[in-house]
Amino acid sequence: MIKRPLATALALSLGFTAGSAMADSLMDRANGLFEPVPKYPPVIDGNELTQAKVHLGKMLFFEPRLSSSHLISCNTCHNVGLGGDDELATSIGHGWQKGPRNAPTVFNAVFNAAQFWDGRAADLAEQAKGPVQAGVEMSSTPEHVVTTLQSMPEYVERFQDAFPGQDNPVTFDNMAVAIEAYEATLITPDAPFDRFLRGDANALNDNEKEGLALFMDRGCTACHSGVNLGGQDYHPFGLVTRPGGDILPEGDKGRFAVTETASDEYVFRAAPLRNIELTAPYFHSGAVWDLEEAVAVMGTAQLGTELKDNEVKAITAFLKTLTGDVPEVRYPQLPPSTAETPRPVDMVP
Amino acid sequence: MIKRPLATALALSLGFTAGSAMADSLMDRANGLFEPVPKYPPVIDGNELTQAKVHLGKMLFFEPRLSSSHLISCNTCHNVGLGGDDELATSIGHGWQKGPRNAPTVFNAVFNAAQFWDGRAADLAEQAKGPVQAGVEMSSTPEHVVTTLQSMPEYVERFQDAFPGQDNPVTFDNMAVAIEAYEATLITPDAPFDRFLRGDANALNDNEKEGLALFMDRGCTACHSGVNLGGQDYHPFGLVTRPGGDILPEGDKGRFAVTETASDEYVFRAAPLRNIELTAPYFHSGAVWDLEEAVAVMGTAQLGTELKDNEVKAITAFLKTLTGDVPEVRYPQLPPSTAETPRPVDMVP
Repeated sequence: MIKRPLATALALSLGFTAGSAMADSLMDRANGLFEPVPKYPPVIDGNELTQAKVHLGKMLFFEPRLSSSHLISCNTCHNVGLGGDDELATSIGHGWQKGPRNAPTVFNAVFNAAQFWDGRAADLAEQAKGPVQAGVEMSSTPEHVVTTLQSMPEYVERFQDAFPGQDNPVTFDNMAVAIEAYEATLITPDAPFDRFLRGDANALNDNEKEGLALFMDRGCTACHSGVNLGGQDYHPFGLVTRPGGDILPEGDKGRFAVTETASDEYVFRAAPLRNIELTAPYFHSGAVWDLEEAVAVMGTAQLGTELKDNEVKAITAFLKTLTGDVPEVRYPQLPPSTAETPRPVDMVP
Repeated sequence: MIKRPLATALALSLGFTAGSAMADSLMDRANGLFEPVPKYPPVIDGNELTQAKVHLGKMLFFEPRLSSSHLISCNTCHNVGLGGDDELATSIGHGWQKGPRNAPTVFNAVFNAAQFWDGRAADLAEQAKGPVQAGVEMSSTPEHVVTTLQSMPEYVERFQDAFPGQDNPVTFDNMAVAIEAYEATLITPDAPFDRFLRGDANALNDNEKEGLALFMDRGCTACHSGVNLGGQDYHPFGLVTRPGGDILPEGDKGRFAVTETASDEYVFRAAPLRNIELTAPYFHSGAVWDLEEAVAVMGTAQLGTELKDNEVKAITAFLKTLTGDVPEVRYPQLPPSTAETPRPVDMVP
C-alpha cells in the first residue's frame, strides 16, 4: 500500500477515515458528482456523425470565407491550438471590433446543456449560426454564406456527400449541422481527473485530492458538476457578493437579455471548467487572467467565503487535473475561390 | 503508343516532329528550364532542420502571441489551408489595417532566391522578422516577442532543445531561424508537371502540353523558370506596356524602395507560379482574381503580345498542373500564457 501522509492528514482534517478508505470515499463522492469525458464523441440526436459530415464541418470550422472579410474563421476565436479559445479578454472580430464577452472554449462544448454565456443557443448547430452573422464577429449573412459555398464545386460535392438524399444540401442550416458534427469530435478525454474517476487513485496527487475535496465540500459543485464541471445551468454571478464592475460589467445583464425576467439579471451559464488552465482569461468579462484569483473571486462572490491561500492553491491544483488530451487536428485543405465566389468585403458597415 | 491527335496538331503547328519525338522534345526542353519540387526539404546553409527546431518553428508559425494583439499569426496571412496565402488582395493586419501588397504563398517559398515582392529579405529567416514588426501586420517588437516567449516555460525548453549549447537561446533571431526551418518543410511535391519532368509523358494532357510549349515559346520562361517558375530575379512590371493603375498602383515603385535606383522603378520579383491556381488574387497588387486574365495581362505587359483566347486557356491549363501535394499539417498545441506573459494590446498606436 502506498503511503499517503499528506492525504491522511487531509482526511483527518476533513473528518474522513484515513488511508485508502479516504481515497475510495473521495473517489466515490466524485463519481457521484462528475463524469469522465468519454473517449469517443457522443451521439447527437438528429445529427449522425458521418465521416463526410465531420470532415465538411472541419473545413467550415477553418473556413475564413464564412466571414464577409474572408479573414475570420471559427478557429480564429476558438483556436484548437490554444485550448479551443483565443486567450483574449473579449474577441476581436470584423473591422477589429471587440465582442462583448469572453470566447468560450470549443473543446467539450458538445457536453454543455446550452451554448453561449447566456445559453441563448440550445445546441452547437444553433450556436454556429450566431458568430457568422454577428456584425462584430464574422459579419456575414446566411444568403452570402450559401452563395460563397455554392461557388466552389468541391463544397457542393462535399455537402452532397454529407447530406445524402437532399435536393439542395448547400444551406446555412446544413453548414451549422456540419460544424456541430465536427465540434462534437473536439473532446479532450483522459485528463488526470478522468483517470481518477475511472479508479486510478494515483492519478491525482495529495494536493490535488485536497483541492477536489474542498471543491466538493465548499459547494463549488452546486454549479460546477457533470462531465464538464459546469455548462449545465444558470446562476447569478455575485450570488452572495457582487464583484466589482471590472469583473462584472454593469452593462451586461447576462441571461436577462434572453428571458427578460428580472431574476435573470447578471445570471450566466456556469462556466465549464474542463481544460481551464488553457483558457485564461476567465469569466464572461475575461477580466481575470490568473486562475488562483478566479478561484478566490468565486469564493467571495458565489460562496460568501474568503478561501485561505492554501485552499485556493489546492483547488487550483485540482482544476489543473482537468486538462485532457487535446484532439489531433490535421489542417484541412480548402478549395480555391472561383469566379463566382463573392469577393471579400472588409469595410465595416 | 498512345495517340495524341491534338498534340500532333500542336507539334505540327509549332514546327515540331510529330508524336513521341515531340513529347520527348517538349520534356527535354522543359527539363532544361525547370526543376521538379523535391520530395524532401532542401538543405539550408547554417540552419539544420532538426525535428526540435522544425516543431518549434511550427508552433511559432501558428503563434498569435507573436503579434501584439495576440490575434495574428504567420498562418493568418499564409494560411496552410488556403494554398499558403490568404486569398485577399492585400492582407488585413493589426487594427484592421491593410498591407500594401498581396501576401505571397509560404509553400515552396524556400526555393525563392529572395523573399518579399521586392526581394528585400535574403531568406526566410530574415523575412520572418518583417511582418512580426510591421505596424500594419503583427505590430510587435523583438523585445516584446522575447519577453512573451520567455514567459512560457515550454517555449524556453523548446528553444533550448532546438538550439542546443546556446546560453540564451530565446532570441528574436532564433525565432526567425526556427520559422525558416518549419517553412522549409512546406513544399508541395508531385504536381502533374513534376511527374512530367520526371519522365511521365502522360502526366500532362494535350492542352496542358500545348500550354507548356506556349509558355516556353512565348518567352514566359525569361522570368518564370527554375523549380518555382519564378521567384529568382527582378523584372519591371510593364516591361513592354505598363498596366493601368488598377493593376500597377503608381504609389508602389517596388524594388526602387530597396535599391533607390531609378531603373528599379516598378521592378518586382517575378512571382513564383507553383500552386498558382490556389493563390488568387494575382500580382503584387492582388488586383486580378482570374488566372486567365492574369495570363492575358502578362502577355500584353511583359511580352508585348495579345495572346489569343485559346492560348490563354492553354497556358492557364498548364499553370494548373503546377498544383502539388500540399503538406499535411497537424495543428500544434501552444502553451498557455502565464502571469509573466504580456497581455494582448489591441490598440492601434
